[in-house]
Amino acid sequence: MSAFRVGLLGHGTVGSAFAELLRARADAVHAATGRRPELAGVLTRSEGNFEEVLEGSDAIVELMGGLEPARDYVLRGLRSGRHVVTANKQLLSQHGEELWEEARSAGVQLRFEAAVAGVVPVVRILQEALAAAHVDRIHGIVNGTTNFILTEMARTGAGYEEALAQAQRLGYAEADPSEDVDGRDAAAKMAILARLAFGTPVHIDQVRYEGIEQIKPDDLEYARELNLGLKLVGTAERVDGGLSVHVHPAFLYPGHPLASVAGPYNAVTVESEAITEITMSGPGAGGPQTASAVLGDLVSTMQEPPEASALPPDTLERTQPLEIVADVESAFYLHLEVADRPGVLGQVAQILGLQDVSVKSVIQKGLGESARLVMVVHPVLESKFFAACELIAGLDFMRARPRAIRVIEEEFV
Amino acid sequence: MSAFRVGLLGHGTVGSAFAELLRARADAVHAATGRRPELAGVLTRSEGNFEEVLEGSDAIVELMGGLEPARDYVLRGLRSGRHVVTANKQLLSQHGEELWEEARSAGVQLRFEAAVAGVVPVVRILQEALAAAHVDRIHGIVNGTTNFILTEMARTGAGYEEALAQAQRLGYAEADPSEDVDGRDAAAKMAILARLAFGTPVHIDQVRYEGIEQIKPDDLEYARELNLGLKLVGTAERVDGGLSVHVHPAFLYPGHPLASVAGPYNAVTVESEAITEITMSGPGAGGPQTASAVLGDLVSTMQEPPEASALPPDTLERTQPLEIVADVESAFYLHLEVADRPGVLGQVAQILGLQDVSVKSVIQKGLGESARLVMVVHPVLESKFFAACELIAGLDFMRARPRAIRVIEEEFV
Repeated sequence: MSAFRVGLLGHGTVGSAFAELLRARADAVHAATGRRPELAGVLTRSEGNFEEVLEGSDAIVELMGGLEPARDYVLRGLRSGRHVVTANKQLLSQHGEELWEEARSAGVQLRFEAAVAGVVPVVRILQEALAAAHVDRIHGIVNGTTNFILTEMARTGAGYEEALAQAQRLGYAEADPSEDVDGRDAAAKMAILARLAFGTPVHIDQVRYEGIEQIKPDDLEYARELNLGLKLVGTAERVDGGLSVHVHPAFLYPGHPLASVAGPYNAVTVESEAITEITMSGPGAGGPQTASAVLGDLVSTMQEPPEASALPPDTLERTQPLEIVADVESAFYLHLEVADRPGVLGQVAQILGLQDVSVKSVIQKGLGESARLVMVVHPVLESKFFAACELIAGLDFMRARPRAIRVIEEEFV
Repeated sequence: MSAFRVGLLGHGTVGSAFAELLRARADAVHAATGRRPELAGVLTRSEGNFEEVLEGSDAIVELMGGLEPARDYVLRGLRSGRHVVTANKQLLSQHGEELWEEARSAGVQLRFEAAVAGVVPVVRILQEALAAAHVDRIHGIVNGTTNFILTEMARTGAGYEEALAQAQRLGYAEADPSEDVDGRDAAAKMAILARLAFGTPVHIDQVRYEGIEQIKPDDLEYARELNLGLKLVGTAERVDGGLSVHVHPAFLYPGHPLASVAGPYNAVTVESEAITEITMSGPGAGGPQTASAVLGDLVSTMQEPPEASALPPDTLERTQPLEIVADVESAFYLHLEVADRPGVLGQVAQILGLQDVSVKSVIQKGLGESARLVMVVHPVLESKFFAACELIAGLDFMRARPRAIRVIEEEFV
């Protein structure tokens, strides 16, 4: 059978790793699909012409990143009847609906496994194996940089800045790590996963997110004492008939499938009553790993004929989207630095009670003049919990801002 | 669009759970595929006629288990142009080549996600996301019964018989658990996975396997002391240009992705240079869970048009199968009960040395008249190691048969 011509947009770390992998695995792709892939054209920032690359290609692989011109090229690729494979999470989380709509009307495939969780094949599992499942919740560690930093802090007792510098030395964090450490990268990925799992368009602006810059060695020491894992966790879950998507640092109970995920790894747990849960884990990034996920997608476009009935399912045409819910219930760990004098705990407890916050456990430690109150509270509406925190912050015995971290508790056996 | 008629063979635990799930998720399947599934006919051991069920169906779901008449029905279903979904691992591991050949020549799909590792979507990942990957090794905990028993033994210090009885009480082991505890069930599953990952037909008779009946509480105590996990591990790996597939109890180093898999869960780790590794885990059995995997397969047959080009890849037509290698290298833990007298360690060490077995660590514990020698040896050809064990077993100071358990060591970071 004839060759399958691949047009590659972008030739950075992932792009060049993909070009290399495509050469190395051409025989295997041929064996799996009956067609031999070849790199027909490459567009870089400085070289190549998009129209020429498009003209000579059967499919487009977009690995240039960023919003423009990636968006324009992907749209034109789809419109011209080419399957498109992309790893561009920011593009999908901001312009996804436009791109999916274009793929639908052109009757071609838009695949994006590499945009979420590196080689972990969660996109495919949600689109295929779980296409008809009723997913209740997804928890994901979907950013390898922050997981490496938190793992280092837990392992060595280092502070955030020191662990970040170590991540940068080892190539796990970029020179400008802001999109990773502030949670925005994870938020984009959770928006994409939420759309797949819940049949609801989710824009990154609808995802509440928080990063790990405020995490202190103290928090990790507390986690170690209680045998909890502290991770940056993305959550997409059904709440009161709606959908909540958020990314926050969270303590995970011992035995949670994500609690033991260490270093630059990613992992995603999908919960559904019928399946209980599935967890998938693997390296979250790296040129060859991401390239491997891209190649898996490319092979799938080659295996399936380009007919509408063979497209990856996009159930959004036939399902009712859920409302996005902003205020959800969560359990919290609350850390207060207070003056060590009588009546402090009583005042704190009174404010919590007025906001319906119910305390599960308290540890008080004296530190000479000041004391530390560490408590875990039962699940409560976040708005009420943060209102209580604001009131507590204003009390005259407070020595620092209250620090709160979510706690993910065991719900099933 | 028209209804999609499903013919169901078998109405036991999984069959009835599937019938129930198909009803409950009919709307979701319709949304994902554009066709509404309906149960068109059911064949049980006592009721129904296969020809009638076949006649009225667009696809066949085989959940009756056993070799015959399941083999005959699946063959006839495929031959008549129906897609077939099955959970029957014994059938596939003994008559798989005949069935796959029939599916190929009839141009229909034979799907079997539920035959391996319950809801863990490892079949799909190997067939699709990793279709063009160069897989080096698969490690799997693919039998939930034995993993539950080993977890109980580790948790409570109970003996094998006691933990088995507990598994039976909780429904994790059958009244006759022999195929689970002797490793044959896991061997069937590893044969199926090995075929997918390495493009080589593997019959269950080519899989060496060993069960967990000989595991003692001592072994688990030793594992706990060294922070190792003791699991029944299936392995399929490239060895010297060939393929080795085996199932054995094994100690896993701390941090191995399978070491923390507890209770009746299954998990599979796929290693490949390009991806490093992917691990997938979830419930290994249970009616609703298995039914959910079957439904995922059924949805896939409905999504793809029944053309040869859309079949799940069967690369065996285009790849060179590997030779099956029986004798491979492994590290071992060796447990010897000996008379406590001088010269014992010297004689043991001499025999090991003559067989090229190199000792990594030794612990000797006195027990009054007798002593216990526990050693870990470096990777060595299994034939040589077991030859050394036979020689050691014949020494006059031995108080019991030597006990050996494989050790899976860390190879990458």
